[in-house]
Formats: sequence, structure tokens, C-alpha cells
Amino acid sequence: MAARAITKVSELDGEAPESTDFANYFCTYAYIYHQKDMLEDHKRTGAYYQAVLSNKRQLQGKVVLDVGTGSGILAIFAAKAGAKKVYAVEATNMAKHARNLVDHNKMSHVIEVIQGTIESIQLPEKVDIIISEWMGYFLLRESMLDSVLVARDRFLLPGGALYPSHAAIYMAPIRSNLANQRTGEFQGSMEGWADFLQEMQHYYQVNLECLSDAYRTEQKDYYLHTSQWTDTHPQQMLGPAAPFIKYDLHNVTLEELKAPLRSEFVLHMTDGGPVDALCGFFDVWFRGSVENPVDNEIRLSTGPDPTGATHWGQQTFPLHPPIDCAPGDRLRVLLDVSRRMDNQRLLHVKAAITVEGNSIYAEQSKTPRTFRWNIE
Amino acid sequence: MAARAITKVSELDGEAPESTDFANYFCTYAYIYHQKDMLEDHKRTGAYYQAVLSNKRQLQGKVVLDVGTGSGILAIFAAKAGAKKVYAVEATNMAKHARNLVDHNKMSHVIEVIQGTIESIQLPEKVDIIISEWMGYFLLRESMLDSVLVARDRFLLPGGALYPSHAAIYMAPIRSNLANQRTGEFQGSMEGWADFLQEMQHYYQVNLECLSDAYRTEQKDYYLHTSQWTDTHPQQMLGPAAPFIKYDLHNVTLEELKAPLRSEFVLHMTDGGPVDALCGFFDVWFRGSVENPVDNEIRLSTGPDPTGATHWGQQTFPLHPPIDCAPGDRLRVLLDVSRRMDNQRLLHVKAAITVEGNSIYAEQSKTPRTFRWNIE
Repeated sequence: MAARAITKVSELDGEAPESTDFANYFCTYAYIYHQKDMLEDHKRTGAYYQAVLSNKRQLQGKVVLDVGTGSGILAIFAAKAGAKKVYAVEATNMAKHARNLVDHNKMSHVIEVIQGTIESIQLPEKVDIIISEWMGYFLLRESMLDSVLVARDRFLLPGGALYPSHAAIYMAPIRSNLANQRTGEFQGSMEGWADFLQEMQHYYQVNLECLSDAYRTEQKDYYLHTSQWTDTHPQQMLGPAAPFIKYDLHNVTLEELKAPLRSEFVLHMTDGGPVDALCGFFDVWFRGSVENPVDNEIRLSTGPDPTGATHWGQQTFPLHPPIDCAPGDRLRVLLDVSRRMDNQRLLHVKAAITVEGNSIYAEQSKTPRTFRWNIE
Repeated sequence: MAARAITKVSELDGEAPESTDFANYFCTYAYIYHQKDMLEDHKRTGAYYQAVLSNKRQLQGKVVLDVGTGSGILAIFAAKAGAKKVYAVEATNMAKHARNLVDHNKMSHVIEVIQGTIESIQLPEKVDIIISEWMGYFLLRESMLDSVLVARDRFLLPGGALYPSHAAIYMAPIRSNLANQRTGEFQGSMEGWADFLQEMQHYYQVNLECLSDAYRTEQKDYYLHTSQWTDTHPQQMLGPAAPFIKYDLHNVTLEELKAPLRSEFVLHMTDGGPVDALCGFFDVWFRGSVENPVDNEIRLSTGPDPTGATHWGQQTFPLHPPIDCAPGDRLRVLLDVSRRMDNQRLLHVKAAITVEGNSIYAEQSKTPRTFRWNIE
């Protein structure tokens, strides 16, 4: 049940992921079909391609580190753009496929694939650029940015650049059938529980009623307090999205990142409610560093898009019952995002929401309504 | 990311599961909805109920150990049947719900819930009966029988009885659309891969062809070399099922259980082929021990049943291409079942199959055809 052993190929190879984290997290990334899913998200792969290939001047002759290289694609982009040397670090056995891909694309004189976690590997030199596709759902799920910051602090030269360099997370008020649907499913589940209790009494003379509260909590958590992957259409938006956190990735510290995040922001309602859900998503930007800015700034956006979502989709947070408000009202949201105690790669989100404005709804909204969700 | 801490409630509490095993395996059993799924499988729960309540004479005044008590239901059955003392051992936090259920059903003077793995807990006395619902798909998946044998060797009195006491695994030749369907899905997946290669070349000038063999292997493993949960109808059977392994649970050793299993057996074809799949399932029997036999023997069968499957269903192993044979032919099967290297709770199955008889198919079947599957 241990994580797979690493057979040393590069002198620079490090250690395998800790075994629980491998079971929980890294395992998925060892499959090519999953790499394919990410690669064929052309908004994603295309943004990285443009960020690198339309900024050749920044890459030429430089030393680059790719954190979590997976199939090796970003390392290959960097080599194509003229990098002198690319260190491509991958914890899982996908590293051997990356080596293969690098060889077959005749890049092995530039790219060195290193297997191990970023925390455990060594590099023979510092690097000019760190490139990484580390973003999870709602930006922060998976907590892989931690490893990129470790890489930055260990290996990035002063004035060096991170690709991407900036990130922001947004929330938008939307109309959605999700809250309704989930509420119905939850009620159905509780009706099933009532039948189940009767059966257990009838067949086996055992009374399971004392588990009802715990079951209700468990099912409520699942149906009503869990966000969901959605491909949200812009027409569902009842007002513009507001960024509630922006990161300059060159400056944010690992401690800041690991600490619970609290942010207060205002959503301006273009349309009236009911607001059935909040829709969360992120953008990242490739700007280079202050000392080494890019020629062509690229943005990768994962927001509602009529042409369809990236593989990240959006995270939709159901509000039940929905929040009533009128056009012109504002929703004041106090948002808390923290890592889950039982698995730090997953997130817990809390919101306290007040309606402000001139409408009757604002008048009735004395105390904030509170909500909580897990991002699974 | 560590396994949840155990707060000691019983003096007898032991340790939590090793953290990787918790992530991979135990985690599921900590949800009531999953306990409900098992409890409301009335063929399962009813068989245990009958095995215990129709054999009160065997339980009366006895000391019982329930290995992996989950919700506590089997411990409650044992107490209802007149057991003097029941130790109900559960590794996950479901233990606290079991305690609650025991209290509310006024059984706490008889049942002591102990949280911890069976390998780590202590009992103040040896027991007359060990009851456990340890069976996984294809009987052996999950490898929980290991823990029952550890319990037997540590805690069962001489002459004591295991509930269940015996088990057998069967294979039957069936007609099924599974192999066809899976072959189609696999082909579709490889066509998708060809399109993907073109896109990657066209958009990013990267040639991923060198990954094709590995992708084909990965997809073949997934679509064609993985068995599937099915609710097989008896009319799909092309001949009777043959038991290929029988366990007397009082005598089998942990070493025998952990060793790869090899068995040769013959399937008699009532109908002709093509045989699209083998259908695997198990039965267990409650017979008590030689010294303490039950009054009423109960059998729990998970084979094809016109009234529908238990929650275990059957495991269907696709044969592609199918095996041709005529009514009256025999399939000679050499079967190997072993634990997976990467996760010992999962299984790997291999088969070498020859057609015997007087038909043209038997004549053409000179060398055995070989197959392999993972049970996920």
C-alpha cells in the first residue's frame, strides 16, 4: 500500500509523495487519460502556449523549472521558446512518459525530467523562470500552489518570473436550478430514511431512530453544503462577478496561503433575485516579474463563457432558500475559505450575506444569513 | 491528512487504521449512508439475522466478538439472541454511532463497542463466537477476511464458532453484452486519441505518438481487463456455475489466504456459445463449528437471482473475443487470483481456458486462451 518506488533515472530525482497523499491525490495524475483531459482543454493549454511562445524574448537562453510537469508539455513549450535548460519535476510515474515525450520530440539536450516531490528534489542551479499549472477547482483546491511557492523560495533567482504571475478568485450571483434540485434530492433521501427505519424495525426489531440526526447532517452536508462543478452560462449571472482575493504570486508567502482567508466584498445586482447560488471561478495572468515583464500579457479565464467551460468549470455554491433582492440592490458577502481539517487539499467555505439597497428585501435583511459548503 | 484520531471511550480501544489504508479503504465505512446501503440489502442482513436468531441455543450465555461492527447491527442481533457479552469492534468513527445505537436499543449492559483495528485492540477474555460481515466483491476483495482470521487466532476459544463458517466462490459461463460494449468503448477511446494527437500536433507542434502504446495499454486495462459489477439474470447462464475454491473458515490460515490462489475447474456447457463472459460470485454458510454446530444452517448466496442481486451483485469478467463452443462441450479453466501489488485490497485474476468435447470448437482449441482482469 506504499507509494510506488522511484527508480532513479536522473541524479536529481527525489522522493515519492507521502503515501496517504499519494492515495488521496497524486494517484490520478499517473494516468495518461487524465493528462489528456487537461491537455485537450485548449483554453488552458493554449493560454500556456501563448504565454510562452508569444514571449520568446523572455525565455531565450533562460533556465526554467516546470513544477508538476505531468506529460512534460509545458517544459516542451519552454524549450521550443528557446530556453537553455528546463528542469521538469514530476512526483508520479508520469515522469517516465514525460521523459519519453521529451526524447521523441528531440528535446532531451534541453529538458531534464526529475522524478520526486518539489520539496525533496535538488537542482544544480537556480532558475530564471518557474512555470507551473497548479490551479485546482476554485483556484485553491488541491493546495498545489504550496509546492510552487516552495519551488520559488528554493530555486527562483532574484528578479526571476513565475508563469503564471498573478491570480484572482471571483464570485458572481446567479440563477440556477441547483439549490432547488439539491433540496429535492435531500428531501427524497430523508423520505427514504424514514422508510428504512420502518423496515429495520419491522424486519429485525431494531430501532435506528437515534441515527436520524447524524444521517440528516451527513445528507445535508452532501446535498446542500457541497459546491458543484458547473458549466455556467453568462446569462445566468444576475450581476457582475466580484474578485474577492488577488494574489501576486511573486510576493504571497506560504503562511499567508495556508492561513484561513477572509474577504468582504459587494455583489451589485443588475437583475433582481431570487439568487439561487454563488458562482465561483478564477483567472490567472502571465505578466512575468517586475524586473522581467513579458512582452505579451496572457490571461487564462475560467469564468462563465457562452462557448463552454474549461475543464475546471465553475464551482457553484447553492443558496437555500434563495436570497431575494431587487435590481440595484447589493449583496454584502463576508467570505471565509479554509483548508479542511481531514484533508488539507480540500476546502471549506463560509459566507455571511446581507442585502443592501432601497428595496423591501434590503429593509428586511437585518442580520446576515450564513451559509457553508465543502469543496470536494 | 492523518487518519482521524480516536478519542478513547472504552478502555479496550486500540489504534486507528494506518493512514494510507484509511484513505484507500476505511474512509467509506465512516458514512451512515453506506451503512444504510448494506443494512437495507435484506438478503444480506436477513441471512445474518436468521443465522443468529434461529440459533438462539448456540448464542445463549455466550461471549461474542463482532469484527467490523459498523452500525453495530450484528452485535445487537447477537445480544437479542441471548449472548452474555458482545465485543463490537470498529476501526472508523462509525463506532460512536454504534455506541449510540446500542444505548438506544438498551443493549449497553451486554454490548461493548471498541474502537480500533482488530490487530491493535485488546479483549479481557476469549470468545465463543466470532461474527463478521467481511465479504467483498468476489468474496475476497477488500481482504477483510485477514482481520477475521487474526481475530480467530487471537481471541476464539477452542471449539468456538465463526459466523459465517464456510465460503465458496463460483464461476459461471454467461451470455452478456458487456464484452461487446466494452470493446466498442475501447475502440471509441482510441479513435478519440487519434484525433487528440492531430490536435496536439496542429495547435502546439508537439508529437505525442510515443505515448500511444502506453495509452492503449491503460485504456485496454480499463475497458477490457477490468471486471464489472452486474445484476446477472439466471437466464444469461449458459451452464451451471462451478465452485473453484471452498474455505472452511475455521481452518484456513492467514498465509494460505494471502498466497496467490490457483484452481483448475470445468464448466459444463448446457447451451452453446458464444460465451461472452464469466460471472463470478460467492456463497457463505453459517454452520457453526464442528464442536458447536448450529441447529439451523443458513446460506447467504450472491449468485444470479431473478429477484435481483444483493449489494455485492456479481463480478462479470468479459471474454473478448467470446469463446465459441457447442452444447455438451466443457470449458477447462485454470484460474489464478492474486492480490494487487499496488493495493492489497484489490485483486488480479488470470484465466487460461480450453474447450473440450466433441464439437468442432473443441477440436480447434489446441492451446488455452488466456485472459486477465483487475477487480477494482
